[in-house]
Amino acid sequence: MKKKNKFYLTAILLINIFTLALNAQPQFRNKINFPDILGYRSLKCDFHTHTVFSDGNVWPTFRVEEAWRDGLDVIALTDHLEYQPHKDHIPSNHNAPFQIAKKLASELDITLIQGAEITRNMPPGHLNAIFVKDGNALVKDDWKEVVLEAKKQGALLFWNHPSWVAQQPDGIAKWYAEHDWLLETGILFGLEVYNANIYSPETHQWCIDKNLAVLGNSDVHDPLHFEWEAEKVAHRPITLVFAKDSSPESVREALLDRRTAIWYDHKIIGDKKYLKEIYSKSVSIDKNKISAIGRDSKPLLVTNNSDVDYDLNLVSANPNIQFPKEMKLMANRTLKVSVRAAKEDVSVKEKVTVVYEVKNLITAPGKTLQVTYEIDFDIRPKK
Amino acid sequence: MKKKNKFYLTAILLINIFTLALNAQPQFRNKINFPDILGYRSLKCDFHTHTVFSDGNVWPTFRVEEAWRDGLDVIALTDHLEYQPHKDHIPSNHNAPFQIAKKLASELDITLIQGAEITRNMPPGHLNAIFVKDGNALVKDDWKEVVLEAKKQGALLFWNHPSWVAQQPDGIAKWYAEHDWLLETGILFGLEVYNANIYSPETHQWCIDKNLAVLGNSDVHDPLHFEWEAEKVAHRPITLVFAKDSSPESVREALLDRRTAIWYDHKIIGDKKYLKEIYSKSVSIDKNKISAIGRDSKPLLVTNNSDVDYDLNLVSANPNIQFPKEMKLMANRTLKVSVRAAKEDVSVKEKVTVVYEVKNLITAPGKTLQVTYEIDFDIRPKK
Amino acid sequence: MKKKNKFYLTAILLINIFTLALNAQPQFRNKINFPDILGYRSLKCDFHTHTVFSDGNVWPTFRVEEAWRDGLDVIALTDHLEYQPHKDHIPSNHNAPFQIAKKLASELDITLIQGAEITRNMPPGHLNAIFVKDGNALVKDDWKEVVLEAKKQGALLFWNHPSWVAQQPDGIAKWYAEHDWLLETGILFGLEVYNANIYSPETHQWCIDKNLAVLGNSDVHDPLHFEWEAEKVAHRPITLVFAKDSSPESVREALLDRRTAIWYDHKIIGDKKYLKEIYSKSVSIDKNKISAIGRDSKPLLVTNNSDVDYDLNLVSANPNIQFPKEMKLMANRTLKVSVRAAKEDVSVKEKVTVVYEVKNLITAPGKTLQVTYEIDFDIRPKK
Amino acid sequence: MKKKNKFYLTAILLINIFTLALNAQPQFRNKINFPDILGYRSLKCDFHTHTVFSDGNVWPTFRVEEAWRDGLDVIALTDHLEYQPHKDHIPSNHNAPFQIAKKLASELDITLIQGAEITRNMPPGHLNAIFVKDGNALVKDDWKEVVLEAKKQGALLFWNHPSWVAQQPDGIAKWYAEHDWLLETGILFGLEVYNANIYSPETHQWCIDKNLAVLGNSDVHDPLHFEWEAEKVAHRPITLVFAKDSSPESVREALLDRRTAIWYDHKIIGDKKYLKEIYSKSVSIDKNKISAIGRDSKPLLVTNNSDVDYDLNLVSANPNIQFPKEMKLMANRTLKVSVRAAKEDVSVKEKVTVVYEVKNLITAPGKTLQVTYEIDFDIRPKK
Repeated sequence: MKKKNKFYLTAILLINIFTLALNAQPQFRNKINFPDILGYRSLKCDFHTHTVFSDGNVWPTFRVEEAWRDGLDVIALTDHLEYQPHKDHIPSNHNAPFQIAKKLASELDITLIQGAEITRNMPPGHLNAIFVKDGNALVKDDWKEVVLEAKKQGALLFWNHPSWVAQQPDGIAKWYAEHDWLLETGILFGLEVYNANIYSPETHQWCIDKNLAVLGNSDVHDPLHFEWEAEKVAHRPITLVFAKDSSPESVREALLDRRTAIWYDHKIIGDKKYLKEIYSKSVSIDKNKISAIGRDSKPLLVTNNSDVDYDLNLVSANPNIQFPKEMKLMANRTLKVSVRAAKEDVSVKEKVTVVYEVKNLITAPGKTLQVTYEIDFDIRPKK
Repeated sequence: MKKKNKFYLTAILLINIFTLALNAQPQFRNKINFPDILGYRSLKCDFHTHTVFSDGNVWPTFRVEEAWRDGLDVIALTDHLEYQPHKDHIPSNHNAPFQIAKKLASELDITLIQGAEITRNMPPGHLNAIFVKDGNALVKDDWKEVVLEAKKQGALLFWNHPSWVAQQPDGIAKWYAEHDWLLETGILFGLEVYNANIYSPETHQWCIDKNLAVLGNSDVHDPLHFEWEAEKVAHRPITLVFAKDSSPESVREALLDRRTAIWYDHKIIGDKKYLKEIYSKSVSIDKNKISAIGRDSKPLLVTNNSDVDYDLNLVSANPNIQFPKEMKLMANRTLKVSVRAAKEDVSVKEKVTVVYEVKNLITAPGKTLQVTYEIDFDIRPKK
Repeated sequence: MKKKNKFYLTAILLINIFTLALNAQPQFRNKINFPDILGYRSLKCDFHTHTVFSDGNVWPTFRVEEAWRDGLDVIALTDHLEYQPHKDHIPSNHNAPFQIAKKLASELDITLIQGAEITRNMPPGHLNAIFVKDGNALVKDDWKEVVLEAKKQGALLFWNHPSWVAQQPDGIAKWYAEHDWLLETGILFGLEVYNANIYSPETHQWCIDKNLAVLGNSDVHDPLHFEWEAEKVAHRPITLVFAKDSSPESVREALLDRRTAIWYDHKIIGDKKYLKEIYSKSVSIDKNKISAIGRDSKPLLVTNNSDVDYDLNLVSANPNIQFPKEMKLMANRTLKVSVRAAKEDVSVKEKVTVVYEVKNLITAPGKTLQVTYEIDFDIRPKK
Repeated sequence: MKKKNKFYLTAILLINIFTLALNAQPQFRNKINFPDILGYRSLKCDFHTHTVFSDGNVWPTFRVEEAWRDGLDVIALTDHLEYQPHKDHIPSNHNAPFQIAKKLASELDITLIQGAEITRNMPPGHLNAIFVKDGNALVKDDWKEVVLEAKKQGALLFWNHPSWVAQQPDGIAKWYAEHDWLLETGILFGLEVYNANIYSPETHQWCIDKNLAVLGNSDVHDPLHFEWEAEKVAHRPITLVFAKDSSPESVREALLDRRTAIWYDHKIIGDKKYLKEIYSKSVSIDKNKISAIGRDSKPLLVTNNSDVDYDLNLVSANPNIQFPKEMKLMANRTLKVSVRAAKEDVSVKEKVTVVYEVKNLITAPGKTLQVTYEIDFDIRPKK
């Protein structure tokens, strides 16, 4: 018997090696072209993902590979604590996803954050704890005890999808006393303004009013491309974190300092001070002086050096100059627009201020960023 | 405590329902446009896939959804018996993948076949058993005993990737006495001529010489789109099975009757009798009579009504007529080509036979299908 | 000198032949998958295109090739009569575009219609005459004389882009006495409800009120893919003409009978009787009986066999059954949705009528088509 | 009558303005990500294009817009002098294309070069003159006189598609005494090694042997996307010119100095000194030190910061280290590969040199560039 066993072990060893070779599929990382701002790196993060260890359909390492491919910098694995539909086949272990994936994350320079989804009826609804140290210690009946245990571990908390129709049938987020309690614990740093493809304006307004970080996460269960197939978007919801570097400490510091924005569905949502910088680091114009005679139209080349599409609408300008009413600044492209006098007999010799609204830069529910350009005009009437 | 537990159970129940709702992502099936032939349906099959129950990275139901989306009709789940790298977290159970996925397969009308990969050193290398009844009964030290157990269960067997470099460092498949033994058992019905993106000409030739079914399978471990990202192909390797219907019985009957072909990388590999039918059911020409004067060129509209791209090279024709040297018949498109006299003073009033080689229809290693068209010409010299 | 000339002529002759060969780029026609309805063919038409013979940037034959590639059946070349910016290099000849392109159109089975754009200030604005016989005879100062000449030639007329901001700065179409005059002549059969990417609701309403054909045309000047690059649409605005065949006579008859609809930007605009047929010929459901116990959810496979995307919103249904609130039926795909009881204790044993609004099938400004399904339910409460 | 005329003129004027507005389609320029080298800019050029002024199908300004969109820096308009198939509608004027397009080129910062294709039987075949001053002065019977006139104007000459099957039915380029004469004139600076999608190895070798610039041009007649639809390539053949700036003078100087390469079909063709720089400015590796124990595999992240895809094959390395046999470095992506000891008991503590062949960087017919990496290894056997 011994002999047989030995042979068997060797076989397994060899298989192990062979299989590794077979699995060595090439892996590609896409670069996301997004400006760093205000002396910080603009980290691309997703703080809400699932694996087979709760109701997800993928192995934990896959989430890391997927994030790496998608050009992300930081992800959290946040399997449900209370909902374990695979437990007949996978005994519950709330530390396993992080333990399994951390070596690969380190090799790929992905910052992996241990998390857990506290999965309760509303209120308080679902809460994600991140920077968790021991997931199994979070299994408790009383959700407040779970929160306090998370706090003891140094974790941070955010409230997931407050407007989720399964918990708010009218799709309108509601703030409960329980959330006041969460605020008071000091552990609640942010809210999911975007969960998957759902935006919650109430939640957005709470972030502004209560000084909480805006968050946009995928809440992905299947492979990403699978869930997002019907959406006409380039990527999952991304929480942009403006941090010194991509270390867990810097991410944590940035979250506590509310240095976040959300990038999804051709929109960026966040504080004016971040959005203004992102726009001005992305877009440049080829000239700030225009001379013309009569209604001769002059080209203006507007270059967007980022992966963000910007949609601009004219707000106001000198009525003697005809600026384009709309400008779609497609990612990584240069747009040619034409500028000219509004009438044949116009004479303009001054610095003209033109204001555009950037429709997809959202500073508050229903509010967009305005940007201003100044151009020296020298327009003389045609004789 | 009782009370608490009750509450807790109710919570879990509600969560269960809610989560189902959240997960109800839209699911789309793509239609594959491929002709049925010879009174059979042309089933699109993949007999070699992995899940988290061996070294794959996805939950078993995902393989079914993925196949459904990709327009496939039949898949086998064939996790490794001997290689169980996730066993620290997922206790080995070789029936689990099939048991977990079969309900969804039935709902989606996907024929799901229980399989297992017998994972041994060469010889005999890796063998896939399909139509397995009890995977756990296949766990035995002696591989021949495994094969005999599989036979007892009514399973069929094929030899995976005979040219795999991890087992044949020169990448050349070799036939061993062990494979003769397998043939003699009557359980071996086919060989993987294509495994993932690797074609083995030796294996192809063995199929022809030994009357075995040609098979092309993905051997996928990650989500498919992930592994195939760097390949410039529309889909995974597909084993085409020409069967009466998609029931397991009909698939089995077709496999035993060697009614298969392989579709991958813009190529179809199989017996001439199948390839000829596939081509003639895919491609039509708008006219079989051409009249012209002098070298006036006449359009010929060649329509490809399938998802297969066909690449044709001219083999022979009447030297007085100039046919296109090449025709790329792109999937679901009509190609316009021009035909004309080779010289100004030519007179052709007859039925002309033109022969093309279809470069991507492979009947044997290095051999392609030839197709023949007959066109009535009436060309008169220009005066 | 004679010798030289001879040589020179031969050289030119050979060059001619050679160049033809060099230019013989492969040409592909894409198939548009759109249902024929009510015993008619659904012709894909564009009645408004330009060439270098006015202010377009392409040679007339290119418009035909482009239409053929795009899968269209019918196009009109409608160069401006009065606006000839290339005339320093191309002497005005309003019959030239049609004369140049008609041979190729015939070879490719594209119905080519001679047209001309009568290009005047508002009112009456720009008018397209189609089925013109002599474009040069339409050059007259008085636009009414042009219209009467067109009528004499048997041409038909439609009014282009009535809401064009260059002629209606507020973008709202206005009906003038001149258009009443046009109606009275009997030559005006339709209006451009869609011109390029601009929809005019006023124009749409006029078509309904005055029994005029709805038209959607590209008004393309550059190659199409060039102008439509920034639009996220699959194709140009298409006027669907429901005609016996694609002959000019049948197209004309259908236009006079107002058998048209517009397909653009994922929308179809037209009379309810056409839209209903288009939808029901496009979409099928895999079952009309559903049995379930408790809240067990049952899959419904909804197949869209056309190139049109359909977006459905639930309008009304039996409150005991939970139907999907939205269904996006992507072109040529099958959607899986789930249906189940609204509560655990429901009992439904009857034929249930469910009504959906098809958001992208527009029967009048602001009105959409409703479609009704009947499904036999047998739902029993869980015990 | 006077009155009418006045009104008519005003109408035309207004129409002019309106039409300009209608035509003002948004125009986007794509950025090509290609490294500048050796202190020069890497200009993207196409020296062979056609318009309606010979046998092309587009207006001259379109070529400029198209080049601008495609991210090119320099184009030449090179209509045939002797082949004028549109002359019944467009009177021959060999200066017109340049005159018409130059204003737009200047606005878009595209360097537009006046050219002409001298279109003769072989020998000498077709020759492109660029930097032409008066195209009409080049219309002469004797082709040598045309060349001498071109020289008088300060033009440069290259030989187009020497292997063109219409002039060399076997597709093999042949060098004639006429080409020696061209060399002697000093006006011939380069050869089309790539014309459209045809590569000529003979021509490539002549460039090396006779010190002529390699050129790859589109020879486009239709809009580009139309001709290249069936090709699976990202862009037209591009002649890379390494010049101080994009002024005509600098381009001319670079051409005379043979500072060119060709980029097409995932290949770059040119002198080793340019290709080596292009590669090393495109590709970087994340580490040059690797420590491991036993056969533990270590990730190496290889980043390609350019729009060029690079395909590498392993040539030689230390046999104790297992490097990937192939590396596909996709444009703008990072590839993760694994490196490890070839056996369990290996000890390597040294700087290891590994040589790869870059299969798509072609220095001569059949020859590719080799690149060398040096990595410090510290591998210790597993105990």
